[in-house]
Amino acid sequence: MVNIGKVVPTGIIPGMGKEKKPFPLRGDVIAALGELMGMTVFIFLALSGVQAALNAPAGSGDKVPSSAGPTFSQIQSVAFSFGSSITVALFLCAPISGGALNPAVLLTLLLTGNIPWFRALLLFIAELVGAILGAYFSNWVTANQLLGVNKINPGFDIPQTFFAEALGTGCLCLTVLFIIIENNVLVTFTPFVVGLVVFMCHMFLTPIDGTSINPARSFGPAVVTGDWTLNHWVFWIGPLTGAIFAVVMYLGFKSLKYDEQSE
Amino acid sequence: MVNIGKVVPTGIIPGMGKEKKPFPLRGDVIAALGELMGMTVFIFLALSGVQAALNAPAGSGDKVPSSAGPTFSQIQSVAFSFGSSITVALFLCAPISGGALNPAVLLTLLLTGNIPWFRALLLFIAELVGAILGAYFSNWVTANQLLGVNKINPGFDIPQTFFAEALGTGCLCLTVLFIIIENNVLVTFTPFVVGLVVFMCHMFLTPIDGTSINPARSFGPAVVTGDWTLNHWVFWIGPLTGAIFAVVMYLGFKSLKYDEQSE
Amino acid sequence: MVNIGKVVPTGIIPGMGKEKKPFPLRGDVIAALGELMGMTVFIFLALSGVQAALNAPAGSGDKVPSSAGPTFSQIQSVAFSFGSSITVALFLCAPISGGALNPAVLLTLLLTGNIPWFRALLLFIAELVGAILGAYFSNWVTANQLLGVNKINPGFDIPQTFFAEALGTGCLCLTVLFIIIENNVLVTFTPFVVGLVVFMCHMFLTPIDGTSINPARSFGPAVVTGDWTLNHWVFWIGPLTGAIFAVVMYLGFKSLKYDEQSE
Amino acid sequence: MVNIGKVVPTGIIPGMGKEKKPFPLRGDVIAALGELMGMTVFIFLALSGVQAALNAPAGSGDKVPSSAGPTFSQIQSVAFSFGSSITVALFLCAPISGGALNPAVLLTLLLTGNIPWFRALLLFIAELVGAILGAYFSNWVTANQLLGVNKINPGFDIPQTFFAEALGTGCLCLTVLFIIIENNVLVTFTPFVVGLVVFMCHMFLTPIDGTSINPARSFGPAVVTGDWTLNHWVFWIGPLTGAIFAVVMYLGFKSLKYDEQSE
Ligand SMILES: [Ca+2]
Ligand SMILES: [Ca+2]
Ligand SMILES: [Ca+2]
Ligand SMILES: [Ca+2]
Repeated sequence: MVNIGKVVPTGIIPGMGKEKKPFPLRGDVIAALGELMGMTVFIFLALSGVQAALNAPAGSGDKVPSSAGPTFSQIQSVAFSFGSSITVALFLCAPISGGALNPAVLLTLLLTGNIPWFRALLLFIAELVGAILGAYFSNWVTANQLLGVNKINPGFDIPQTFFAEALGTGCLCLTVLFIIIENNVLVTFTPFVVGLVVFMCHMFLTPIDGTSINPARSFGPAVVTGDWTLNHWVFWIGPLTGAIFAVVMYLGFKSLKYDEQSE
Repeated sequence: MVNIGKVVPTGIIPGMGKEKKPFPLRGDVIAALGELMGMTVFIFLALSGVQAALNAPAGSGDKVPSSAGPTFSQIQSVAFSFGSSITVALFLCAPISGGALNPAVLLTLLLTGNIPWFRALLLFIAELVGAILGAYFSNWVTANQLLGVNKINPGFDIPQTFFAEALGTGCLCLTVLFIIIENNVLVTFTPFVVGLVVFMCHMFLTPIDGTSINPARSFGPAVVTGDWTLNHWVFWIGPLTGAIFAVVMYLGFKSLKYDEQSE
Repeated sequence: MVNIGKVVPTGIIPGMGKEKKPFPLRGDVIAALGELMGMTVFIFLALSGVQAALNAPAGSGDKVPSSAGPTFSQIQSVAFSFGSSITVALFLCAPISGGALNPAVLLTLLLTGNIPWFRALLLFIAELVGAILGAYFSNWVTANQLLGVNKINPGFDIPQTFFAEALGTGCLCLTVLFIIIENNVLVTFTPFVVGLVVFMCHMFLTPIDGTSINPARSFGPAVVTGDWTLNHWVFWIGPLTGAIFAVVMYLGFKSLKYDEQSE
Repeated sequence: MVNIGKVVPTGIIPGMGKEKKPFPLRGDVIAALGELMGMTVFIFLALSGVQAALNAPAGSGDKVPSSAGPTFSQIQSVAFSFGSSITVALFLCAPISGGALNPAVLLTLLLTGNIPWFRALLLFIAELVGAILGAYFSNWVTANQLLGVNKINPGFDIPQTFFAEALGTGCLCLTVLFIIIENNVLVTFTPFVVGLVVFMCHMFLTPIDGTSINPARSFGPAVVTGDWTLNHWVFWIGPLTGAIFAVVMYLGFKSLKYDEQSE
């Protein structure tokens, strides 16, 4: 689908920029193990934080019918949990796998030529397995049944949720791609910036559908709880559509930018 | 109005410092497209976060008459939304447009000679269009009618609001200008510092008028909702007055500093 | 009182390390003007944030008798306001005055030979005037009477408050001094670290006395409101005692460290 | 137990990488004094913040039976207190002792050959003494009886708590170890990343057992209050098991990585 002339090393996949030769299979497997570790840590920490926030005793004045969705204090706790956990997990696995920790981000890296298809496939599988492991561990150590399964909350319909997921994921993927352009200065603290956009997406998407912007994050809890809502596909198609949109925007700017620099 | 001897490259407009020749029209248009993208992302994320915080179900003990303004927990959520969103959007568009994302900041850059008037004009138009787009997307995907229109809350009058907006915007513009002076060391994480001052302005201005400190941010939701309050002009004159005040302060220090260095 | 062999350039006073000759009077006056600007911004933003948090409407379930002190949500808002404001103001005035923004920090810099006594005197006066200006502006633009005057809350006595202020300020001053030692790598983001320790001090001192750790911060609101409590002196003696304690600790480690390095 | 070929300088123990000869006893004692200071500051600030959050007056709507555990707003305040305090204390003592401030982290550094056993022993003793001092000071200056003793809350059993502590500590220790690998670029802001993972662990462990992930942190308040619950050993065995697990993971990746690099 896309064919850009120069492969740009990524801030999210730092190890890749240093390698000068085609990836051997061995390197791909090691990267996948790193991604598996990072994804397990990410989903374990984030879902456990959500669990704590939603299970904590509320004062009588804070009680709301659970069908009404989370309160704004709970939304903030959920946003802190996901924003902090993705930042920590990116720092953790970046030296090994580069750290996408999200199939939608992986798709943008694949489509922009920042990662070869075979490594992308292995990382994708590692992300799904890591999300299941993280959700399983979280369910094991926390009180009550696992929360954090994505589903469309009352008051929102499928098109709204689809576009909200696509727009949120688009913002995330655009941020990742444009930080890659400026990789010389920004590369070291990239995980903080990714954490901030993930935080912000949870601030507005949590009342809509619990926030996916990451199909693997939706997949893990669904497997562990067996709770496949009728609309699980929205949490795949929405984020991946946003990722493709971000790639189109990015490549458009990139082609314009080349002209500017050569002028 | 101002005429400073040396043009200083800005941390907020990093691409500019590297260009050695007059801006061609093509470069200006590309910059405007980048600013348009950044502004859309900024306003979409920030207003959606505000929407979620103000629409979330509150426990019976948290219910307040809406005319009384936001609770302090809601103020904090609003401040996190705007502070995080501006940081993310600045990292996103900085490589393309430099990233002012605010007509008041743009005015300080124009008056201090950091940006030529034609590019400033294009960026200004891009900011207004981006704010409308961001507000439109936010209204589309979130529940209920769009919130986040700036208006003077009960208990505050026009002079108070005017000066509060001018002082808040003055703090923002001074921070931008003085980070520019030390651009060698601070340039890479400038967006975090801007995010922090924007966060802080929302912590105190939200109960007063919902916080503008950015005429384009006030313009977008007003266009989308058609809700032009009688005092919309305050959200233009207040921030722009603050910007001019910051420029005067900055140029005064700058002239003194030259003397110190040459002594 | 102290006499250390080598003057170490400070992360908080970065301009000083670059100057090779004795300070001329002119440079001291410019530095004092910068400190005045930074202190005004710091106190204006921080007190306005406190004002908003304490004046915001609380739901019926959040109402508490005001004599009982702030709720933990309010404590957190106050801590965010001071932590964010000091960070922003340090970035703002660091290129001009170095940015102490606190007489207790100034005392540690004076006692460790990082700043000459005449400049310290001018900066001290600038901090007092800036704190008054900031409190005055804050009172002007915000609702109701100015809050934020330090006083000992019910349940705490003078010795407890004195030691809490001394220990909190000691932590702040130790952090500043030890970041100075490692000034090569840490200097650029020092204001974030200072913001974090200021945040933390407000998390535990706000219920005790509203948090001083900074005599000028206590002085400004007292002047503007005319509300000199019987115990205003605690907010001078406590922080300054903590500063002296930090200097003693620092100089002790410094002398040991010299031995280690020369061994 | 472990024997890795090359000793890697650590981001957490920066001073060590610069030393070219075996540690003299003098250097070890100085390091232990630095660790003592850092640990005292860490525990004093963190426990005082917890004390303030849990003692603050709650509105009638926020009142919950204390046996039900902290509310989610309190969990967030506790997480901010520990995350901020560890970051500040690491910046404070890093130039002197390297700054582990946690026997579980110390164990990972010992087992991976990053610190010799005699220095590790001295730092361990310094951490225990510092935790007692910090808890003592905190009890002295804050209202009421010292809170913050770790104990298993109702609704959780020993195996759950053990594994939750081990998994949380494992995430912390893995983060520390993998930041060490990439020490060239990340070393300067390592304390922010450690603060973030500590924040996140408190977000999910606080409702379970008040969060240890650090045996010394559990030891200090237990000594000062004399409140040794029946399960105090869990806060030693859980974190240390997590640390050993992290070392095994790290050494596994490290051996694989060597192969990749030499290929
Ligand atoms: Ca469970
Ligand atoms: Ca809507
Ligand atoms: Ca007032
Ligand atoms: Ca006590």
